[in-house]
Amino acid sequence: MTCELVFVGTELLLGDILNTNAQYLSRQLAALGISVLHQSVVGDNPERLRAVLETAFSRADTVLTTGGLGPTKDDLTKEVCAGLFQKKLILHEESLRRMRAYFAVKGIEMPQTNEKQAWMPEGAVIFENANGTAPGCAMEKDGKRLLMLPGPPREMKAMFERSALPYLQQFSDGMIRSREIRTFGIGESSMAQAVSDLLDRENPTVAPYAKSGEAMLRVTAKAKTEAETEALLDPVVQEIEQRLGGYIYGVDVPNIETAVVRELLRRNISVATAESATAGLVAKRLTDVPGASAVFGCGIVSYQNHIKEKLLGVDPQVLETDSAVCETVAVQMAQGAKRQSGADLAVSVTGLAGPGKDDRGRDPGLAYLALTDGTRTLTRTVCTGQTGPDCRDFNRTVFSSQALDLIRCYLRDFGDTASPAVKDCDA
Amino acid sequence: MTCELVFVGTELLLGDILNTNAQYLSRQLAALGISVLHQSVVGDNPERLRAVLETAFSRADTVLTTGGLGPTKDDLTKEVCAGLFQKKLILHEESLRRMRAYFAVKGIEMPQTNEKQAWMPEGAVIFENANGTAPGCAMEKDGKRLLMLPGPPREMKAMFERSALPYLQQFSDGMIRSREIRTFGIGESSMAQAVSDLLDRENPTVAPYAKSGEAMLRVTAKAKTEAETEALLDPVVQEIEQRLGGYIYGVDVPNIETAVVRELLRRNISVATAESATAGLVAKRLTDVPGASAVFGCGIVSYQNHIKEKLLGVDPQVLETDSAVCETVAVQMAQGAKRQSGADLAVSVTGLAGPGKDDRGRDPGLAYLALTDGTRTLTRTVCTGQTGPDCRDFNRTVFSSQALDLIRCYLRDFGDTASPAVKDCDA
Repeated sequence: MTCELVFVGTELLLGDILNTNAQYLSRQLAALGISVLHQSVVGDNPERLRAVLETAFSRADTVLTTGGLGPTKDDLTKEVCAGLFQKKLILHEESLRRMRAYFAVKGIEMPQTNEKQAWMPEGAVIFENANGTAPGCAMEKDGKRLLMLPGPPREMKAMFERSALPYLQQFSDGMIRSREIRTFGIGESSMAQAVSDLLDRENPTVAPYAKSGEAMLRVTAKAKTEAETEALLDPVVQEIEQRLGGYIYGVDVPNIETAVVRELLRRNISVATAESATAGLVAKRLTDVPGASAVFGCGIVSYQNHIKEKLLGVDPQVLETDSAVCETVAVQMAQGAKRQSGADLAVSVTGLAGPGKDDRGRDPGLAYLALTDGTRTLTRTVCTGQTGPDCRDFNRTVFSSQALDLIRCYLRDFGDTASPAVKDCDA
Repeated sequence: MTCELVFVGTELLLGDILNTNAQYLSRQLAALGISVLHQSVVGDNPERLRAVLETAFSRADTVLTTGGLGPTKDDLTKEVCAGLFQKKLILHEESLRRMRAYFAVKGIEMPQTNEKQAWMPEGAVIFENANGTAPGCAMEKDGKRLLMLPGPPREMKAMFERSALPYLQQFSDGMIRSREIRTFGIGESSMAQAVSDLLDRENPTVAPYAKSGEAMLRVTAKAKTEAETEALLDPVVQEIEQRLGGYIYGVDVPNIETAVVRELLRRNISVATAESATAGLVAKRLTDVPGASAVFGCGIVSYQNHIKEKLLGVDPQVLETDSAVCETVAVQMAQGAKRQSGADLAVSVTGLAGPGKDDRGRDPGLAYLALTDGTRTLTRTVCTGQTGPDCRDFNRTVFSSQALDLIRCYLRDFGDTASPAVKDCDA
């Protein structure tokens, strides 16, 4: 089964709206084992929409549209699709009743214009809209299928899960399952090189991705049953785990902060933060993870030097001589945060986010990080190489990821026993 | 001039990636007065890509692609496009030099595989990549134009602004200019009602948008010259400013943090933060704005109660009796941050981000905010109404925006003179 996605709406062509439906539906269809080889966006124009649908049906047996089911005269998807399948629109009484009830709950009478939304193609399977007025539907003719869903994501998603998904499942003869192997500290090319022989595999496939300074491998298997996909995935994932070892922070974990907080929770180790360049971003990311309050209680943002001195006890002499962006300041910040918080660990970041150089002429992208448990102190120097006018966001994101990774490396490398101080846990 | 957008990448078809490039480029081309009537997404497959390009050129004179310029064998956009235009790929020495320098900065030798990225279609205009390795380009043949940009948004955007935009501008014969009027504290419907008569205008058009608890109006004019668009925009923008008054935090300002930091800088007023539920997000957003270090030096993230007591001097009795989420704690947090930092103002947030209820059975979405200048204390209670399983992100974002808006309202309402303490600056 091949399905094309057609997104209808002039607002998409003008960029007024971010097309989140595209990602959502692509994922859902992939998980059903349905191939999506093309997606199109077209405006609220009946001739162009019809032409796009004809092209889509020349390549695929199923087309799924979103948008154009609203009450205004611009909304023409149903009319065009019904025309293409040579079906009449007829009033669907149950949908009309539901729409009236929808308005009644809000204490308003249904505007006359909305009645249009209850006229549906003859013989179509009607999809109820749990979060709005426009019903969706599915039509079949000569082995071709056309599904129409509303454009607003809340309405579309609920309708997809409740109605379109079970409808499509009847036609799907297999499933696709993926596992994401997430790494830190290795570049995309080096990662790909380490598994280069696996990248040519067919089932499961292995594909590398990179984003915001992280590299990831996705292993994807296609089979009849869940158990068969698992059996295909397991050995390949294990092989990759063996090759990439300590670079891997998790499999099917959404991000490094989640991996770090889970491990802190599992081992009941608390952490505090002292941030300059990232100014709260490390704390924010740790607390993005629900339940983080059990292992994270205190963060100090010391964006100016006098705060580094006052709240973290950084030596003013060092700030004067070596500037705020140096390893010694990073170490003293971490020590200060540990003292102030009483946490088991404290991690610190001081650096140059940019976009400008610092007063010593150093480029942005440079940061010093430290982590202390009171006995051991790990440090790390980061150089992102990003110095352009819009480097600030990227650098701050990478600095914060590196700080999270420093916690991860500590947790990976050290048990609960004390050991002599070490420098730089990273290869 | 008609332009089609073709997004190349199997990761888009699988839903691995949200296609933010589509919205960005659609907006940019609309602003240039270039019509975009179709957009397509196609995978890393040479035959299908070629067919999509042929269809696109049957409808438009210009096609812009993103993606498929990477170093791996999957990346084939350049090869396919050059084939379509019957151009050879030749080594572009300058790009190769730039790529080698890019790696050198990071202290790594360029992998051999990357050299592929420096092979460009003969006669093409080369677009330098300020944020990565893959150069882009533009080709022309028989009145048809094909532009190729890289897929990663940071690389694509920088290249578009620096190179593709000036290239396209030569072919555009009119222009569209927009102004964005950004508000806080008024809902989308109330805002739209206040300007309802303006929403039917044709040139300039006025359109309302809402996102993450903020409402915005976009005023868009079409004309031959910049001066003419300005002349069309000015009176309408002024009219809206008059009607929405103090709700407006800025015109053509990217976000509320930028508006706040600019005003703090202009008036040389410093601020400190004390955060519980947002846990660093307010500090992070303030310091997203380059130059914030002149007015922001200190943030304290007190995610656990003992840190609220120790670092901010919050009364343990109040924490015990009224919990950490109440107005008194918010006020004491702000006072504590003011004391610790010595800043002119301090703002605080304590609340329930969710997803769970608190131990008193209160729903997430509730937060108490306070701001103090040592004399005046403003407070605000926020209730987002979002309690679902994925409410956490939204609630934290809204709480932090409200904290930023509390600073804005203080700056709006109070000059440099002392005045009696007031409660809640917001209507």
